[in-house]
Amino acid sequence: MQIRNASIAAVLLCTAASPAWTAPPSPKAQACSPGNVLCVELTTDNDGRPSYAVHREGREVIAPSHLGMLFTDVPKFERNLAIAAQTRDSFDQTWEQPWGERREIRNHYNQLTVTLRERTGRKRDFDVVFRLHDDGIGFRYVFRSQPGLERLNIAEELTEFTLAEDATAWWIPAFEWNREEYLYHTTSLQQVGDAQTPITLRTGDGLHVSIHEAALVDYSGMNLTRVEGRKLKAALTPGSGTAAKVSVATPFATPWRTLQVATRAGDLVESSLILNLNEPNRLGDVSWVKPMKYVGVWWEMHMDLKTWGTGARHGATDANVRRHIDFAAEHGFGGVLVEGWNRGWDGDWFGNGEEFSFTESAGDFDLAALSGYARGKGVALIGHHETSGHAAHYESQLDAAFDLYRRVGVPAVKTGYVADAGQAKVRDADGGIVYAWHEGQAMANHHLKVVTEAAKRRISVNPHEPVKDTGLRRTYPNWVTREGARGMEFSAWGQPGNPPEHEANLVFTRLLAGPMDYTPGIFGMRTRSSGGIETTWAKQLALYVVIHSPLQMAADLLENYEKNPGPFQFIKDVPVDWETTRVLNGEIGDYVTIARRERGGDDWYLGSLTDEHARSFEVALSFLDEGRRYTAQVYRDGDDADYRGNREDIVIEQREVTGADTLTLRLAPGGGQAIRFVAH
Amino acid sequence: MQIRNASIAAVLLCTAASPAWTAPPSPKAQACSPGNVLCVELTTDNDGRPSYAVHREGREVIAPSHLGMLFTDVPKFERNLAIAAQTRDSFDQTWEQPWGERREIRNHYNQLTVTLRERTGRKRDFDVVFRLHDDGIGFRYVFRSQPGLERLNIAEELTEFTLAEDATAWWIPAFEWNREEYLYHTTSLQQVGDAQTPITLRTGDGLHVSIHEAALVDYSGMNLTRVEGRKLKAALTPGSGTAAKVSVATPFATPWRTLQVATRAGDLVESSLILNLNEPNRLGDVSWVKPMKYVGVWWEMHMDLKTWGTGARHGATDANVRRHIDFAAEHGFGGVLVEGWNRGWDGDWFGNGEEFSFTESAGDFDLAALSGYARGKGVALIGHHETSGHAAHYESQLDAAFDLYRRVGVPAVKTGYVADAGQAKVRDADGGIVYAWHEGQAMANHHLKVVTEAAKRRISVNPHEPVKDTGLRRTYPNWVTREGARGMEFSAWGQPGNPPEHEANLVFTRLLAGPMDYTPGIFGMRTRSSGGIETTWAKQLALYVVIHSPLQMAADLLENYEKNPGPFQFIKDVPVDWETTRVLNGEIGDYVTIARRERGGDDWYLGSLTDEHARSFEVALSFLDEGRRYTAQVYRDGDDADYRGNREDIVIEQREVTGADTLTLRLAPGGGQAIRFVAH
Repeated sequence: MQIRNASIAAVLLCTAASPAWTAPPSPKAQACSPGNVLCVELTTDNDGRPSYAVHREGREVIAPSHLGMLFTDVPKFERNLAIAAQTRDSFDQTWEQPWGERREIRNHYNQLTVTLRERTGRKRDFDVVFRLHDDGIGFRYVFRSQPGLERLNIAEELTEFTLAEDATAWWIPAFEWNREEYLYHTTSLQQVGDAQTPITLRTGDGLHVSIHEAALVDYSGMNLTRVEGRKLKAALTPGSGTAAKVSVATPFATPWRTLQVATRAGDLVESSLILNLNEPNRLGDVSWVKPMKYVGVWWEMHMDLKTWGTGARHGATDANVRRHIDFAAEHGFGGVLVEGWNRGWDGDWFGNGEEFSFTESAGDFDLAALSGYARGKGVALIGHHETSGHAAHYESQLDAAFDLYRRVGVPAVKTGYVADAGQAKVRDADGGIVYAWHEGQAMANHHLKVVTEAAKRRISVNPHEPVKDTGLRRTYPNWVTREGARGMEFSAWGQPGNPPEHEANLVFTRLLAGPMDYTPGIFGMRTRSSGGIETTWAKQLALYVVIHSPLQMAADLLENYEKNPGPFQFIKDVPVDWETTRVLNGEIGDYVTIARRERGGDDWYLGSLTDEHARSFEVALSFLDEGRRYTAQVYRDGDDADYRGNREDIVIEQREVTGADTLTLRLAPGGGQAIRFVAH
Repeated sequence: MQIRNASIAAVLLCTAASPAWTAPPSPKAQACSPGNVLCVELTTDNDGRPSYAVHREGREVIAPSHLGMLFTDVPKFERNLAIAAQTRDSFDQTWEQPWGERREIRNHYNQLTVTLRERTGRKRDFDVVFRLHDDGIGFRYVFRSQPGLERLNIAEELTEFTLAEDATAWWIPAFEWNREEYLYHTTSLQQVGDAQTPITLRTGDGLHVSIHEAALVDYSGMNLTRVEGRKLKAALTPGSGTAAKVSVATPFATPWRTLQVATRAGDLVESSLILNLNEPNRLGDVSWVKPMKYVGVWWEMHMDLKTWGTGARHGATDANVRRHIDFAAEHGFGGVLVEGWNRGWDGDWFGNGEEFSFTESAGDFDLAALSGYARGKGVALIGHHETSGHAAHYESQLDAAFDLYRRVGVPAVKTGYVADAGQAKVRDADGGIVYAWHEGQAMANHHLKVVTEAAKRRISVNPHEPVKDTGLRRTYPNWVTREGARGMEFSAWGQPGNPPEHEANLVFTRLLAGPMDYTPGIFGMRTRSSGGIETTWAKQLALYVVIHSPLQMAADLLENYEKNPGPFQFIKDVPVDWETTRVLNGEIGDYVTIARRERGGDDWYLGSLTDEHARSFEVALSFLDEGRRYTAQVYRDGDDADYRGNREDIVIEQREVTGADTLTLRLAPGGGQAIRFVAH
């Protein structure tokens, strides 16, 4: 038996036709973006199932896709709904980022709010709010406090994303043990399995769509499962200790579900949709948030030369840290990261984390003395809090830990949550320790607590093994960067390391979500990874422009920089904060060329990189100030450069150019090119 | 950062190499089926991750696939495991089914038990038990009671099924609102999304694999999600009111995960793997379980001629029921189903269910009088308990309901759970009402409670909107049949109804799990479904042989049988209990021909059906007793028969045959053929 049949039966039973089964009013709610580029339409079918569809310039992008919410304790919202009201609104504002890939961002959208109400029973209702920008759409569910809905205990979000056309998809698997640290799959849409967001798709005739979310606050991260055909469906990250994946009090608004839509891959990168959907800065004056480049006691551990724990090869020694501070001061780096400075590393810490002290130094590490020594040279220590995923243990020391850093003048901290997916630890409502997923509601809340507590001490935060980035840096500008993808470290020891296409995938997927502490700048190409570093030197330099991160590391061993002052000069010169950003070309997983102008400066920087294929581009320099002359300091692949061989073959040369010129960029297999345009 | 890296760090830290990071012993555990057809190998990698692989005659069928278990409250079993012990065992027994598709079943297997123990920490352990039959493999997890594992609160089962080759897959989506009632998808393996089991696959060179489970007891039903590539992974049905999808005390053994492997599609149907993996009959004497054909007050509701509820068109009236009893008696049917006999149908019952009384009759229905009238004519009333998914409400009346049926002599009951997936209702540990999934642990337990309570009263059970069939009919032989798929009713009102390929899909997917109350036998081909009944009359007859169900309905309106005594004769003749079964030919979703010998009789019956394509088969009758003569009573498609037109074009003819003969079966588009071989 099946419900349609049951309902028919009921119709016949009802003495007078019960409202339960009268045909629903099915009005439509429709709206378009300011430039009429993107339009959305919400409808309900005869069962009262709401669906939305998205069109771009008249062409269907998202076919009718269901909306709804399944609860653990009250009837779901999926059917028996009618459009009870709809309202429209418009918004146009230009705001300034305190730091970032561009200073000014325009937030221009039309808003459609649709109220869906149950046709029978308790007549509960909720809103779906659509924000239509020309470059993408965000929508969220908003629940009023009402009888029977004082709390939301969400079993699953029933949001679907049914692509109207077949497409190629770039994605990483969800719910796997290694969190976000996977190489990207390139498959047909109909071969997608369980995917994390952002997932980026390109339809047969070249329309680009990226699905993600914005403002993940007090909610579980959204993954996507492909139910069948071209239908992707939300799969929320599990909760901690409760049947509900999300448990919140009403009124409540979910994170925004985002669809960036562009004809050009590069337009996805230039889109500010996700930032625009986040709330403005809540921290007030954030002039204390200082983007900077840094070096660190770090890569030497990955190369097995030093250890996190104490002993003969302990990395965080007084001498080694002073050496890094001296190097940073000499070469103009703002920070020195020191991992292994604290107590807790001398045991089987993985998956435990209770041994970690965030206030007590290990061995001979004198935090106050060393940070004082650094400050005296205009350098700052960057703190480190590895939790092994034990967020509850970390929170028990959070105030003391940040007070200490504030006291000794540590302006930024790298946090770490090394635990398998689903094996992090938080406290439940009763104060007991329960497991948590890195992308779940509990960890989303934990990260926000860390960020806000850090902000009180004017400390910036750079989480590794983090919750996904959903643009909260706009609201909390001290949340400057994070890991949350397969970083350069995999090329130190990974089997395999990162292949040449990896960064060309990241730019159009993970990096659409926000900055990443990828840790570029490796000159020592022979590593413990079988393939070593599968890029050329020039590509390592290009990464500083292509991958935006307000905390940007020069990750290699100091001696590799000292031995190679030529290419190192670009790392010293390149800024980490930008006035504007232009994506000159790019195809997902193949290549990309990005030009950025220094924030508060006249110089432009260009980074171009390719996958395993050699490429040649004609690049017009029209982005340069009109009529102005520049000296282009070019760091390019040599004629024999190749990620499989002469990775160190780099040519550094100069030429005078203007915006009227066109440059030919020749990239070696696995290669790249970095250019500084010095304004005259 | 990533665990491999963390582990390396740890190596360097440990004063003496800690057992945490010493290379694990990685022995293999290996075993083959009695005929050396199927072999399994279990190994652990350097991270201590266990995988199993399956070979058939030297050829890889399942590539190395991980095993493991994720808990909500204690560390998972996924890595850091070593093979601590392995034991082997053999078993060979032939047992007799009290009823079914064949009397004798041989249960012949080799068993491999592998103990996996944590290399560090608490050194917890568990077993993986493999049973290797020549026609398939079953494996399960077995957990001893041990410190830190007194209970299992299972967040997810990490069992993977990675097919070694690409394949075509036949499957229905999981976690969708309409439970198990979907048409089958035919896609490439790499286009599978979230699937229910059984899922059946055919590799490029024709190897057939069906993945399902056996003995689903006190556990949640397993679905499969395709993570990536050819990797399917268990996705347990959610729990009720708890974070755990399954919560049980140890010691505990999970249901068997089953892999049926065959070169011929028909061999999947002939396999008894799933029955063999279930426990023997626990009910003792079950001679009171009587397979039978039945008619009912049912199709007329689906055709909108009658109603479940009281009123002018109430179906369950004294007169109408007596008419059905008289008809059953005249034509030799054992039972009469009466839906709408009880109180609770006169409101908006869907999704509620609390209005239903299972002891009080509605309107003028006199249960005692009518069942007495039926008994007097050698006919039994078949009871009906629609719960609207409110299992808790049903359980509160269960004893009284079955006592009543026992008292008035109702030998079988059809239960119903019409509620959307995830919206059934059960009681949690505190006695509160919480939502449940039809395939979840709570409903699996509910169904077993209903079946065992019914057994105490010698009542057989036929659940609709049930939990999936996993062969428990062997252990509880009164669990005679169930729905659990898209039945004939969809061709009464479905938009669309069931297409011609539907039954050819069911035979090789859902029906591998067990009997189905499909309700064949429709002669009135014009229905409320746009396409009507998309079969020929001959195919309707063939369904009685092809689809095995100990409770087999003649579902159509009585007048349609009275008007067509010719074809109706086959429905009157065909048995519902079988001595043996042979699948003569068949391809998934295309066609199938099955011959069965009557249990306790000499006659054979043949059913053959096709999808939308006309087909012609040469069928050797060698299955007939050697040297014996038979009169073949043939019910075949007429020359103009077609599911789109002359559905009623049927030819009924006789001929004398022996096992030495070959018959040519000609099936019309959407057609079929039914034959009774009467032994002389």
